[in-house]
Amino acid sequence: MTSTTTSTQDALASIPTEEAEVRRLDRAHVFHSWSAQAHIDPLPIVSAAGSYFTDYEGKRYLDFSSQLVNVNIGHQHPRMIQAIQDYAARMTTIQPGLANDARSEAARLISEVAGEGLNKVFFTNAGAEANENAIRMARLHTGRPKILAMYRSYHGATHGAIGLTGDPRRWGTEPHTVPGIVHFWGPYPYRSSFHSETPEQETERALAHLRDTIMVEGAQTIAGIILEPIVGTNGILVPPPGYLAGVREICDEHGILLISDEVMAGFGRAGEWFAIQHWGVRPDLISFAKGVNSGYLPLGGVVLSDAVAATFDDRVYPGGLTYSGHPLACASAVASIQIFKDEGIIENARRLGDEVIGPELAKLAEKHPSVGDVRGLGVFWAVELVRNRQTREPLVPYNASGADAKPMADFAAACKAGGVWPMTHFNRTHVVPPCTISEDEVREGLAILDLALDTTDTYYAE
Amino acid sequence: MTSTTTSTQDALASIPTEEAEVRRLDRAHVFHSWSAQAHIDPLPIVSAAGSYFTDYEGKRYLDFSSQLVNVNIGHQHPRMIQAIQDYAARMTTIQPGLANDARSEAARLISEVAGEGLNKVFFTNAGAEANENAIRMARLHTGRPKILAMYRSYHGATHGAIGLTGDPRRWGTEPHTVPGIVHFWGPYPYRSSFHSETPEQETERALAHLRDTIMVEGAQTIAGIILEPIVGTNGILVPPPGYLAGVREICDEHGILLISDEVMAGFGRAGEWFAIQHWGVRPDLISFAKGVNSGYLPLGGVVLSDAVAATFDDRVYPGGLTYSGHPLACASAVASIQIFKDEGIIENARRLGDEVIGPELAKLAEKHPSVGDVRGLGVFWAVELVRNRQTREPLVPYNASGADAKPMADFAAACKAGGVWPMTHFNRTHVVPPCTISEDEVREGLAILDLALDTTDTYYAE
Repeated sequence: MTSTTTSTQDALASIPTEEAEVRRLDRAHVFHSWSAQAHIDPLPIVSAAGSYFTDYEGKRYLDFSSQLVNVNIGHQHPRMIQAIQDYAARMTTIQPGLANDARSEAARLISEVAGEGLNKVFFTNAGAEANENAIRMARLHTGRPKILAMYRSYHGATHGAIGLTGDPRRWGTEPHTVPGIVHFWGPYPYRSSFHSETPEQETERALAHLRDTIMVEGAQTIAGIILEPIVGTNGILVPPPGYLAGVREICDEHGILLISDEVMAGFGRAGEWFAIQHWGVRPDLISFAKGVNSGYLPLGGVVLSDAVAATFDDRVYPGGLTYSGHPLACASAVASIQIFKDEGIIENARRLGDEVIGPELAKLAEKHPSVGDVRGLGVFWAVELVRNRQTREPLVPYNASGADAKPMADFAAACKAGGVWPMTHFNRTHVVPPCTISEDEVREGLAILDLALDTTDTYYAE
Repeated sequence: MTSTTTSTQDALASIPTEEAEVRRLDRAHVFHSWSAQAHIDPLPIVSAAGSYFTDYEGKRYLDFSSQLVNVNIGHQHPRMIQAIQDYAARMTTIQPGLANDARSEAARLISEVAGEGLNKVFFTNAGAEANENAIRMARLHTGRPKILAMYRSYHGATHGAIGLTGDPRRWGTEPHTVPGIVHFWGPYPYRSSFHSETPEQETERALAHLRDTIMVEGAQTIAGIILEPIVGTNGILVPPPGYLAGVREICDEHGILLISDEVMAGFGRAGEWFAIQHWGVRPDLISFAKGVNSGYLPLGGVVLSDAVAATFDDRVYPGGLTYSGHPLACASAVASIQIFKDEGIIENARRLGDEVIGPELAKLAEKHPSVGDVRGLGVFWAVELVRNRQTREPLVPYNASGADAKPMADFAAACKAGGVWPMTHFNRTHVVPPCTISEDEVREGLAILDLALDTTDTYYAE
């Protein structure tokens, strides 16, 4: 082979520089997630920094979606980039069966922020595999077959994770999901499944429903309950007071494990390291991804309680993956956690939620009749749009597409025209900017949302 | 928040530098794949370059395992590292719904090496998710429920991928695998399931078995057949002449899709871009990972035929993931493919297999009675160890552990003591170095294997 005579040549030289070519190759060769391929036209992005990203026309978007709610540290954080470059020069990859300094330290740091009794980390590439492994661990630890999961939830798109999922993304894979998953209803005060009139009632009734479900399914058949402590894409549903503590109590009563899916809610999104910490509840397993390193490299994992981990002290854990504990990905997690601490990023997210986003969204709700509800914590907020406040008829039907979804598509277009990239889902827009966003940037984005909400108001009818 | 006053501080400063601390944190906080956690003591690795990696004592190992058969380009290839550092400065991440230059180019390059009629790429984080999506695509394209997969195969560890897997790694997750997967037997001339005496007979009988399986399962219920074109971890089983062409013919006859799992066999491992190209057979779907970028960042994907891709032109594909088409991972794939071309890495792997590894392993087989069979292509070889050449009794039983596995453990220890890191599985050692390895390095490693085989010969009995 020719040795290293070409070693100074840029191996990236073939990457196209013109927007038209980026777009042409994308349309010719890239198969996109969750899409009808002939009906999309993905916008090429040329750069990103902080709370913004920029297209080839030079138009800059304030990222109110944090991409897929993962860029918690903002785009291209200089210290993150430096850390990735530095560690890449030391070691990119080594197999899971050998030990690596960055992996050791990432696991220590994640255990530390997870809190007492949660001391071991199984690393995966992302959230779906984290949940896949969490339910495998729960079944093997308890020796029981079933997992309870919520309607209105998302846990990933592999066959196990999509089976857990309680939204329409599961439908396309059914009936080829794993057996033994049972869905139940969680709390959602604005659209209560339990006809509750207060948050306290919602907690009480949702817990009664969970108890009933466990009774009829058989507690001794249930290995674990998996839930997003704050439901993410399906509506940023903040649980009413006492709900998560109640679930923990039910789990303890029946020897069921509590799995907190913190893939979206964790690492600052809700103003805590892990969202469930808001309520002082300790889960048995935590799945994470996204915010752990803001997706600068693919990384996810499961934090195990000491009791669950001990199950596999003498018994082989039947799961693994080539890139478990990937050194470069782990190094980026080390850097991210260090930067979060140095720069007070968790605190910034919490303060912005309490002092800016919450109060400002409340003002928008006062002003715009089509805003039926606003709710959230940290930089994790939903604005739920309706055609009527009394009936709470959603602005668009559940899982609407095409012409049915036009009111939301027009809203999203108005946001983008104004320079904000929104995160819309069904009849909601989510306000989920990077945790590093400044107060001024938040206000700039909310002002554009304010204008865009004029379009949704036109559908409102008393 | 404190702005960027700390921006020059090293965010990786907390990573331990001492071996003892790397090990202590690993044991305290890292939960390892496929292991009983109290019974492992992972060796900390401090650096890696080319065909070698080095521990904290300064002991250097020739990597005859390419980690988990993924570091095809060798460790820390300088142009790869430079490309990762350069692209990291431009853009690490952007969501799958936007377009990205590196992703566009990676998809073009992968389509190009996949060959005619295979023009679209769905990117995943690794191989398991690639196979998960490949079977979902096959089912939706055909409208049929079942997937046929081989015994003696590995396809990943998520609930769908482990269901496809035909080895003991599936057992720990059963019965919680996806429904509709049927296993059949593939060719394995050395241990024929069909009592064949020649490779030709093995092909004929394995195809007859596949036809029979399809007959009794019902062709109209079968969406796809997934196979490793050269079975990897389960024995580097090179199919006898005509087998893969025969499978293709059977698939065409019944409208069944052929899915080539090239996660391990692809990107140079077998001396071709994709192993199935050895036999001139075109699959409908190709899954890949590992060698695409040597795992420098997690990356995998599925290449779709034009016909399968067209199914999702107007119909939403129900699958996705946050990091699909991750820009930095895609940039590393662009660099890797460019370097493969510039440096003739495919050709190097092919030549070493034909001219060095094959002939030298044949000599070892002559010399060491415990070598029952050697087989392979490129840098993808198995040495199968037996207690007797007539009975072909394996050196250790199928799926042996503990004391039963001692002969193989001793062999591996002898290799490591000699400075080669081997890839052992059941009663085999695989010779799977980086595709960039030099002839001298190959010979150095084989000389150490030669010595280590003296230990396995002691178990041999006529």
